[in-house]
Amino acid sequence: MIRLSSSFVRTLREDPADAEVASHRLLVRAGYIRRSAPGVYTWLPLGLKVMRKVEQIVREEQDAIGGQELLFSALQPREPYQATGRWDDYGPTLFRLQDRKQADYLLAPTHEEMFTLTVKDLFSSYKDLPTMLYQIQTKFRDEARPRAGLLRVREFIMKDAYSFDIDDAGLDVSYEKQRGAYQRTFDRLGLPTVICQADAGAMGGSRSEEFLHPTPVGEDTFVVSDGGYAANVEAVTTLPPEALSEQQIAALPAMHVEDTPGASTIAALTDFSNQAFPGKGPRTETGEWTRYEMLKHLVYMLTLPDGSTEPLVIAIPGDREVDEKRLEAAVSPAIAAPFTEEDFAATPALKKGYIGPEGLGLEGASGIRYLVDPRVVPGSSWVAGAGEKDKHVYDLVYGRDFTADGTIEAAEVRDGDPAPDGSGPLRLTRGMEMGHIFQLGRKYAEALDLKVLDENGKAQVVTMGSYGIGVTRAVAAIAELHHDEKGLVWPRAIAPADVHLVATGKDQAVFEEAERIATALEARGLTVIYDDRPKVSPGVKFKDAELLGMPTIVVVGKGLAAGTVEVRDRASGEINEVSPQDVVDAVTEQVRSA
Amino acid sequence: MIRLSSSFVRTLREDPADAEVASHRLLVRAGYIRRSAPGVYTWLPLGLKVMRKVEQIVREEQDAIGGQELLFSALQPREPYQATGRWDDYGPTLFRLQDRKQADYLLAPTHEEMFTLTVKDLFSSYKDLPTMLYQIQTKFRDEARPRAGLLRVREFIMKDAYSFDIDDAGLDVSYEKQRGAYQRTFDRLGLPTVICQADAGAMGGSRSEEFLHPTPVGEDTFVVSDGGYAANVEAVTTLPPEALSEQQIAALPAMHVEDTPGASTIAALTDFSNQAFPGKGPRTETGEWTRYEMLKHLVYMLTLPDGSTEPLVIAIPGDREVDEKRLEAAVSPAIAAPFTEEDFAATPALKKGYIGPEGLGLEGASGIRYLVDPRVVPGSSWVAGAGEKDKHVYDLVYGRDFTADGTIEAAEVRDGDPAPDGSGPLRLTRGMEMGHIFQLGRKYAEALDLKVLDENGKAQVVTMGSYGIGVTRAVAAIAELHHDEKGLVWPRAIAPADVHLVATGKDQAVFEEAERIATALEARGLTVIYDDRPKVSPGVKFKDAELLGMPTIVVVGKGLAAGTVEVRDRASGEINEVSPQDVVDAVTEQVRSA
Repeated sequence: MIRLSSSFVRTLREDPADAEVASHRLLVRAGYIRRSAPGVYTWLPLGLKVMRKVEQIVREEQDAIGGQELLFSALQPREPYQATGRWDDYGPTLFRLQDRKQADYLLAPTHEEMFTLTVKDLFSSYKDLPTMLYQIQTKFRDEARPRAGLLRVREFIMKDAYSFDIDDAGLDVSYEKQRGAYQRTFDRLGLPTVICQADAGAMGGSRSEEFLHPTPVGEDTFVVSDGGYAANVEAVTTLPPEALSEQQIAALPAMHVEDTPGASTIAALTDFSNQAFPGKGPRTETGEWTRYEMLKHLVYMLTLPDGSTEPLVIAIPGDREVDEKRLEAAVSPAIAAPFTEEDFAATPALKKGYIGPEGLGLEGASGIRYLVDPRVVPGSSWVAGAGEKDKHVYDLVYGRDFTADGTIEAAEVRDGDPAPDGSGPLRLTRGMEMGHIFQLGRKYAEALDLKVLDENGKAQVVTMGSYGIGVTRAVAAIAELHHDEKGLVWPRAIAPADVHLVATGKDQAVFEEAERIATALEARGLTVIYDDRPKVSPGVKFKDAELLGMPTIVVVGKGLAAGTVEVRDRASGEINEVSPQDVVDAVTEQVRSA
Repeated sequence: MIRLSSSFVRTLREDPADAEVASHRLLVRAGYIRRSAPGVYTWLPLGLKVMRKVEQIVREEQDAIGGQELLFSALQPREPYQATGRWDDYGPTLFRLQDRKQADYLLAPTHEEMFTLTVKDLFSSYKDLPTMLYQIQTKFRDEARPRAGLLRVREFIMKDAYSFDIDDAGLDVSYEKQRGAYQRTFDRLGLPTVICQADAGAMGGSRSEEFLHPTPVGEDTFVVSDGGYAANVEAVTTLPPEALSEQQIAALPAMHVEDTPGASTIAALTDFSNQAFPGKGPRTETGEWTRYEMLKHLVYMLTLPDGSTEPLVIAIPGDREVDEKRLEAAVSPAIAAPFTEEDFAATPALKKGYIGPEGLGLEGASGIRYLVDPRVVPGSSWVAGAGEKDKHVYDLVYGRDFTADGTIEAAEVRDGDPAPDGSGPLRLTRGMEMGHIFQLGRKYAEALDLKVLDENGKAQVVTMGSYGIGVTRAVAAIAELHHDEKGLVWPRAIAPADVHLVATGKDQAVFEEAERIATALEARGLTVIYDDRPKVSPGVKFKDAELLGMPTIVVVGKGLAAGTVEVRDRASGEINEVSPQDVVDAVTEQVRSA
């Protein structure tokens, strides 16, 4: 029993100054967490209970699919992370430190390396596989901008699991098991999630899905269609328009260079085109020119993992911007930065402001890599820079007048864009990443030489899956979803106690009866927060009960003389009057039936 | 159920090369832990289960005395540790790091500062006290010499608790509660402990006791007497001989300087004295001189916390050496280093090799601090250097011919020394520190300004107690105590499973019956390791069962045809034959009755 008179629970009247979101505001005000440094939190007693409940649900679902729990150290030596490249790749997000002998260590952000090495250490045969291992462990990431309380922190608790299989078919089975476990986990946590196709990005796997919880405070943007398509923005592929046949292309007007004085922006060029060549636009029935066909050329400098650099030109329809995250995912593991003045100065083939397809491409005169938006299909007609000031090329047809080295998914995704699977228009939605499952494949096993002997005695590289759930973040997400203007409203499975029992007034008989009820509820196996504070007003006690958010609130007070106590449902606000003799049964039944 | 055919448990035939002690050797060989860096370990599935059981016992006993659990981050900002001086005092044992903004952080070795600040944050009145808070958390210390597997590591799990009281009487009550909780905890863990008086040392408190588990692999030396005295060596006080009265002193021979050519060591001076002045020794009936009275003077340079230095001369009976740890505790928070040649050169008052009491003491001609062993009592008679080569002073009587600035407990403690409480001769014993409780007092509360208002509305500094148990180390100590030449022998409360069920041979009926028994045992709430490996010999299975160390081993094998299975007690080796129908009842009873 948690007696508020002597427990380490203190509520605050004021919102914390730095609270941007409800979960942060309420978890601090209700005395669940306290900030100890930017992005670093203390779990106070009630917060710790919630976190342990989330942890336990995650654990049970991992155990249910045969996951075996172990625990790695947070402190890890540099060498394995060097071997996989992550010591460097992680950049400033990795907390690095040295021991007293100047040996390099890190605080692990995830443990791919250690799982791989430990399996290598213990296993040697295909008969040892498949295996599924996991840990629930404290992780560290030096986020550039910790924010929103527990939503993005620098020290957090995460479940990370890894599957080890001899072949891809086995990996698919392991992956499906985790996918099911994740659905059951988030169901039990009371967190609706959308399973989104995710770009595997730098991790370099094959199947990759994120469990995104739709919420306006989410940091991720994802898209859904009514037909059931869901993907994060990086993973959305563009549904290209139909390409024309060679015959159709031959029938199109020939390309021609025109003077376009002062038309140095997409908008200006569109206006100019409508004035100079009215009715000639290729894509509208009226022949109006649109920004779409003003093909925009953007130049980046790519830095490859080996440190070398090379220029990249990409072309996208003029009515769209580049989405930095999509570009980042598309060029990964290289890193793209906009071309600088110095870069232009060093690359005479690219005339800033007048770039068109002429001479671009690895096979072109410039030898510069050139990628186009997937909407640039054979037969599509464009206007583009002619390589000199105040001149543009019109009726420039892809496949006839120019080609590229390939396509790139870098243009922004918009509400209403068609889903790539034909399931209807896309809607952009904000979400929070609660879990991520993906097929790592053989990347880590190859880097760290994890092989087992197959049936024929031949060494085979093991294939791996990686499955993470942010426990700390789940607590925040649950609080974010389950609250009202008065405070937290915990789902029963997560609440730090089943019942919040309030004794009001000064009548000794009230406190004695409340004590009896609290003890009787605990004897039934329920957990009780008992507000036994002697000199606190009923109003303050009710406010605290609402702020703390236990699902059932029992009030023993003035009604006792008339033979009633109140049972309040925190979520619905419903109040039932029950006799003191019946209250233990009634509440127990309510809790058990939930 | 843990099925060995598919579990992440692998035993090793060979001892790890670096294993110094049995617990290390067996925990690695049995697949409980794996080293990932010096002093850093991975908890494999069975090891994690053991560790969680220890944790849970510790937690239950803390909860039983009203302890409230919370959880601080490992990553802590520098500032609070700077305020208490520990940022510097901890020296190279503290893992320090910087974040991406070059802010200083540490990995907390303990959390006195955070507990103090959090109570300050939440509490303001004497009515909020007393309170007892604890956490079970991963801690980091960069030990200079990690050793012996889990016995001294750099990342470990510890329970640290703190009590907060308004006054000393309250602190005594909190302290006694924890003392009782510790006794119950170690009882349940199956770890005999001796409660030793401990020097509070740098922590600067008043009552301070260590729970030492007597074991030859322990790092600590402590003393016990048959009469019940127990203390660690740093805390032992010397029982001084009786002092003489002034009258008795007046009757002693006058001091006199003698030529002692070549008598430059204690041994040589004793021999010389017996030859030159036979029968004149002051302490034996025969008048023989002993090394005891050859008063040895040792010179140290003290470095005080503020960085300043001052010399210190200490005098101890010639038959004893200085115990570095006792000296360290005695001068703390100053640090003592032996005088160097440069120090002697800079201090002409001290003539290396010929030092005697002449001129020493803060009031003496030299002004140098001079402390003597407690055995140097008024009326005790000594031989000491005369301040020049080949000369010594005889019949030098303390209180008549010389005095000192005080006494110091720096001489070694020996087997047979009298216990200070008169409870008989001391025995020196090796032990391992399992827990430490002590009265911190107001040190941290003052440094961090933790005050509450008392009954009269006056701000009072809170007084604190500190109570630690090493969870990781407890696992090692239990393994160290409970093993035999075949492997681990877990106490029931700690074992990762209740039963190790072995199916032997190739008979399908054996495996079916074993499966039935394993399932039935689990249905009774017991946990089972089931060795279902199909192609492993009975010998290997038995060896593994003994190595893994579950308290009960059930063997289903050849006997099944004749209607029996074996139930083996791992600890006693006793074997009972039981019918397959009775085995579930028999084993369940055995487990429950333990």
